[in-house]
Amino acid sequence: MLVRMLNLVPKILILATLMVMFSPFFAFADESTAATNAVAIDTIWTLISAFLVFFMQAGFAMLETGFTRAKNAVNVLMKNLMDFSVGSIAFWMVGFGIMFGTDKLGLFGTSGFFLSSANPSTSEGLWQFAYWMFQVVFAATSVTIVSGALAERVKFHAYLVYSFVICALIYPVVGHWIWGGGWLGNRGIIDFAGSTIVHSVGGWAALAGAILIGPRLGKYNNDGTSNAIPGHNIPLATLGTFILWFGWFGFNPGSTLAGTNLSIATIAVTTNLAAAAGFITAMFTAWVRFGKPDTSMALNGVLAGLVSITAPCASVSPFSAIIIGAVAGILVVLSIEFIDKVLHIDDPVGAISVHGVCGTWGTLSVGLFAQAVYGEASGIGAINGLFFGGGLSQLLTQLIGVFSVFAWVFGSALVLFYIVKKTIGLRASDEEQLKGLDISEHGMESYAGFQIFTTE
Amino acid sequence: MLVRMLNLVPKILILATLMVMFSPFFAFADESTAATNAVAIDTIWTLISAFLVFFMQAGFAMLETGFTRAKNAVNVLMKNLMDFSVGSIAFWMVGFGIMFGTDKLGLFGTSGFFLSSANPSTSEGLWQFAYWMFQVVFAATSVTIVSGALAERVKFHAYLVYSFVICALIYPVVGHWIWGGGWLGNRGIIDFAGSTIVHSVGGWAALAGAILIGPRLGKYNNDGTSNAIPGHNIPLATLGTFILWFGWFGFNPGSTLAGTNLSIATIAVTTNLAAAAGFITAMFTAWVRFGKPDTSMALNGVLAGLVSITAPCASVSPFSAIIIGAVAGILVVLSIEFIDKVLHIDDPVGAISVHGVCGTWGTLSVGLFAQAVYGEASGIGAINGLFFGGGLSQLLTQLIGVFSVFAWVFGSALVLFYIVKKTIGLRASDEEQLKGLDISEHGMESYAGFQIFTTE
Amino acid sequence: MLVRMLNLVPKILILATLMVMFSPFFAFADESTAATNAVAIDTIWTLISAFLVFFMQAGFAMLETGFTRAKNAVNVLMKNLMDFSVGSIAFWMVGFGIMFGTDKLGLFGTSGFFLSSANPSTSEGLWQFAYWMFQVVFAATSVTIVSGALAERVKFHAYLVYSFVICALIYPVVGHWIWGGGWLGNRGIIDFAGSTIVHSVGGWAALAGAILIGPRLGKYNNDGTSNAIPGHNIPLATLGTFILWFGWFGFNPGSTLAGTNLSIATIAVTTNLAAAAGFITAMFTAWVRFGKPDTSMALNGVLAGLVSITAPCASVSPFSAIIIGAVAGILVVLSIEFIDKVLHIDDPVGAISVHGVCGTWGTLSVGLFAQAVYGEASGIGAINGLFFGGGLSQLLTQLIGVFSVFAWVFGSALVLFYIVKKTIGLRASDEEQLKGLDISEHGMESYAGFQIFTTE
Repeated sequence: MLVRMLNLVPKILILATLMVMFSPFFAFADESTAATNAVAIDTIWTLISAFLVFFMQAGFAMLETGFTRAKNAVNVLMKNLMDFSVGSIAFWMVGFGIMFGTDKLGLFGTSGFFLSSANPSTSEGLWQFAYWMFQVVFAATSVTIVSGALAERVKFHAYLVYSFVICALIYPVVGHWIWGGGWLGNRGIIDFAGSTIVHSVGGWAALAGAILIGPRLGKYNNDGTSNAIPGHNIPLATLGTFILWFGWFGFNPGSTLAGTNLSIATIAVTTNLAAAAGFITAMFTAWVRFGKPDTSMALNGVLAGLVSITAPCASVSPFSAIIIGAVAGILVVLSIEFIDKVLHIDDPVGAISVHGVCGTWGTLSVGLFAQAVYGEASGIGAINGLFFGGGLSQLLTQLIGVFSVFAWVFGSALVLFYIVKKTIGLRASDEEQLKGLDISEHGMESYAGFQIFTTE
Repeated sequence: MLVRMLNLVPKILILATLMVMFSPFFAFADESTAATNAVAIDTIWTLISAFLVFFMQAGFAMLETGFTRAKNAVNVLMKNLMDFSVGSIAFWMVGFGIMFGTDKLGLFGTSGFFLSSANPSTSEGLWQFAYWMFQVVFAATSVTIVSGALAERVKFHAYLVYSFVICALIYPVVGHWIWGGGWLGNRGIIDFAGSTIVHSVGGWAALAGAILIGPRLGKYNNDGTSNAIPGHNIPLATLGTFILWFGWFGFNPGSTLAGTNLSIATIAVTTNLAAAAGFITAMFTAWVRFGKPDTSMALNGVLAGLVSITAPCASVSPFSAIIIGAVAGILVVLSIEFIDKVLHIDDPVGAISVHGVCGTWGTLSVGLFAQAVYGEASGIGAINGLFFGGGLSQLLTQLIGVFSVFAWVFGSALVLFYIVKKTIGLRASDEEQLKGLDISEHGMESYAGFQIFTTE
Repeated sequence: MLVRMLNLVPKILILATLMVMFSPFFAFADESTAATNAVAIDTIWTLISAFLVFFMQAGFAMLETGFTRAKNAVNVLMKNLMDFSVGSIAFWMVGFGIMFGTDKLGLFGTSGFFLSSANPSTSEGLWQFAYWMFQVVFAATSVTIVSGALAERVKFHAYLVYSFVICALIYPVVGHWIWGGGWLGNRGIIDFAGSTIVHSVGGWAALAGAILIGPRLGKYNNDGTSNAIPGHNIPLATLGTFILWFGWFGFNPGSTLAGTNLSIATIAVTTNLAAAAGFITAMFTAWVRFGKPDTSMALNGVLAGLVSITAPCASVSPFSAIIIGAVAGILVVLSIEFIDKVLHIDDPVGAISVHGVCGTWGTLSVGLFAQAVYGEASGIGAINGLFFGGGLSQLLTQLIGVFSVFAWVFGSALVLFYIVKKTIGLRASDEEQLKGLDISEHGMESYAGFQIFTTE
């Protein structure tokens, strides 16, 4: 930039004498243009980031499809399309207002339903549209996480109902607490792009759902051992992971909501390094534990790294990002094993571990690794974590956040899934599971013409 | 932004006295930078949007591949790559000039062939390159729509020829009428991102082609009933739909051609909500009519919503967008059934209904739902549709546009396909269809090693 | 833009008298905003481009997976994820410093390891993060090219080692020579986005590896004839190609590192046209030679066009771009045949021909087709190639670059692969290859449940 500015100097010297008398006009024209430009830069940055986050829906759909069986693929895909569609409408009707409307007791918002706060005739009103667009794709991410944990046995119309409720109510309440002017935000919690808000909300709702719906038919034996049910399309799952990694460059750097905030560059770097580190440690952890570098674990390692860096991405150094991602990569493998083999909760894609456990780790890591120099650059504030001389106070705030969100989400999701279970039903019958949900729920096959052997 | 401006105040107060005498220089440097910045913002917005629209080619390819049989997948993929490649060259040679060259009688352009209007040494000339890049991906979208309707029975070299002609002539003429300074644009038609120009052109050319080429072998029985020929890869088709939805965020908001036009935010919101609504209503319509939430219909519902919002996206409210998309979702299911079961026109992917019928609906919906406040923000103008007190005049203009474009495209495409049929041949033989076009046209299989049963 | 500036005129006239006395303040506020805006525009352009180039990793993974056999798909995918992850860490630790650190004798850099040159508290420091992000995805592209040529027989842990070394050392040295202040850059070589730096480095390392590892089991017969080993998933390979084409819009136009450099538009156009031309000529060349329009060759034609335009994209006209891409499309088909049938080097995806041969052709084409008017617009300088009156001097420089890079990369990669071969081993055993690397290396299948016949 300096070079470019200097290049203008001769031009200026030549023309300045001619321009002096017109300078006020130019200055004014310019002021207007420069200020408008800055708004435009922030708007296009926020929108392009929103588009990238939208594309993560494709990533989640491919990942979940690839990690489950061919006979349920259509069902998985339909759920992923539906939660985004229903979620978009729900967030437009109710969710956005609860999340960002006028605060009530620090707990929820009470205005702005049906996007009534957005007015196309003002610059601020147009920004509201951009802001809504960015927020709706985050809300939908949270919902779609649940889909994976309930895959291969959830009834389609049950899924329809709880997608709506999570996007309209459960998620926006947490969002209000932290990003919408609520009590946790006021207390100083740092959850920059939503390790807690988005990912742990999805993870804990998934946990509640997976407990209430029970394991897939044939997942656990009478002697308490667990059967592996391999996914049917690893290329698709890998493609999904790449798409998610790609979309995360909108998720994290986009959360500045401002292209004029140059720390978007730092955030891109920390995001990328944490993902890389998560892949490597998850791969080696699986290699050590199972004797081979298992792909599903490695893919989940990437996501673990990404989920964990989501909260601290704007307040830590690249080196800390690598440590945070590396820990997440180990954690996710151990957590998946623990949830499967000890708790006997069936989570076909590891959503609870990836989003709940690593989202929690990421949120806490802010209290450990934050460095004032990074937080100042990104506008978060000059906060140091425990490892950088900041004491325990930030870590404590993060802990309070983690527990409060767990209590609200796990509790309300239990109630929601219980009501669904007792009314319209949550779980597909054994026959439906045997036949596959594609035939029983949608009357069609995913791979017409292919010879496929189905397990169970 | 205001906040940011205010933050500068103390800085200004401290430094202003020092700077006063240099202000003309700064003002000039600034004027230059700010104006250049605005051009740069518009250029990067237009280019990034063009890249997203380019990526829709992948979406169409995956959708069409997934919705057809495994034995024709290579052929489908090659057609999709070819129409973009041949279309790029055709649009560079001829199409762009016919669409945007010096107007002749309001009917077509007559200059700018071979990108001769673009001069790299001026800012305006460089913009011509960006503009061409944005326009070529639109032209190619129009062409690729046809591919789906003729899938599984069209000869590859026939496809090569008509791709060239549509991109060089049929599409650019319509483009000139509406966007290039021609008679329909002058009459005041609103087709913001091309429900008519891009989608109905593709849809009506597909209709002409599907009629002349006849149904796939085994599609209709002697008693007049229709056989369903299920697609072979629904995950791929769903991925394609997600990619198209993603790309549409370039298609519609990008059509401002200006990132400094902040209504890009509104357009993103209306685009997203119409797609979501289209999914939901198509899913429920199929659920009611066929007893199950069919995936192909639901995927086509997303596209129906997107196609229909393409014309009105910059002049309607989010609530109207939901209605427009919802109507499209119903319409597409009924239209697909009607074209298949009543008209007996074989359209393997539903391209005629999605792009022709819903493109028409979307174009007309401007005359019903347009609101001045949105049109003013986006720069389209203060136009109200019938439902918002604007009377019938805009609707009438839209109707004239819809019919004229149908007449030109359907007519000229009939002639084109007729000539192709009578000269180099249009339709693969029965044996070739039985064997599959992959082996007969390309000498290879799509899924070497997989055990696949082919129908017919 | 002019229109927009003119629209401000009445506003200015009305308000100017009021504003005149405040103009120095506004001018200053403005100067600050406009300069910051320009930095922001360049940063978001560079980052978004980096994200697109990152996404090319998915493209390479899908292409390579699709072009190889189902029994090795997991292995291919894991390698592609791993080289990016390990490469990111290696480039952070060592590579970036060697490439861009303080120059030593024109040969390599000696500072900036572990991103120590990036300081988040200054605007220049933040730019370093953006710059690193853009560079790391280029480095990883170079590494991932090698993967394809060694596919279906390379040991996973061997791959892990050489990914690290290429990203930490072999690639950065070339990068330093040309982009990092080294001897070739000083000599005036033009390799705008890296036909040589990225692609030929990948291609020549692939050549060294493919020679040392030997052909896949069953690839060549005793009589010297070659067996075709068809890829198992052409839709995936095609998707990969579309993703690569999409990502290349970040690769080439992004290499301006500046959204304020409006020649990004020209570069997008030349990139697109070369790809289209490469597809067309490769398809016809294969059609003529093999009697059918073969898909693998056509896909490689797209990549050949893209690789070849990567060096000259910012200094040639659209028409020249078409010629350059068209030549590459022919060249790639002939080269793949020659390497397979004459040299008997087994390169499952054609990586050596696409990246090595066409990268070389692209680099040389600058010396033939460069036009001062394009180079001036993009900031490369007013250089004319042989065909535009520029004489032989640029071509000579390009030739020196091509040969020096070949010598360094091929030589050092031979040493690297030789050491790997003699220590931890490079090649999977015949039994492992027969069983497939998915089972033998990773203990899992790619397509659980599908009936698949494996060759050899």
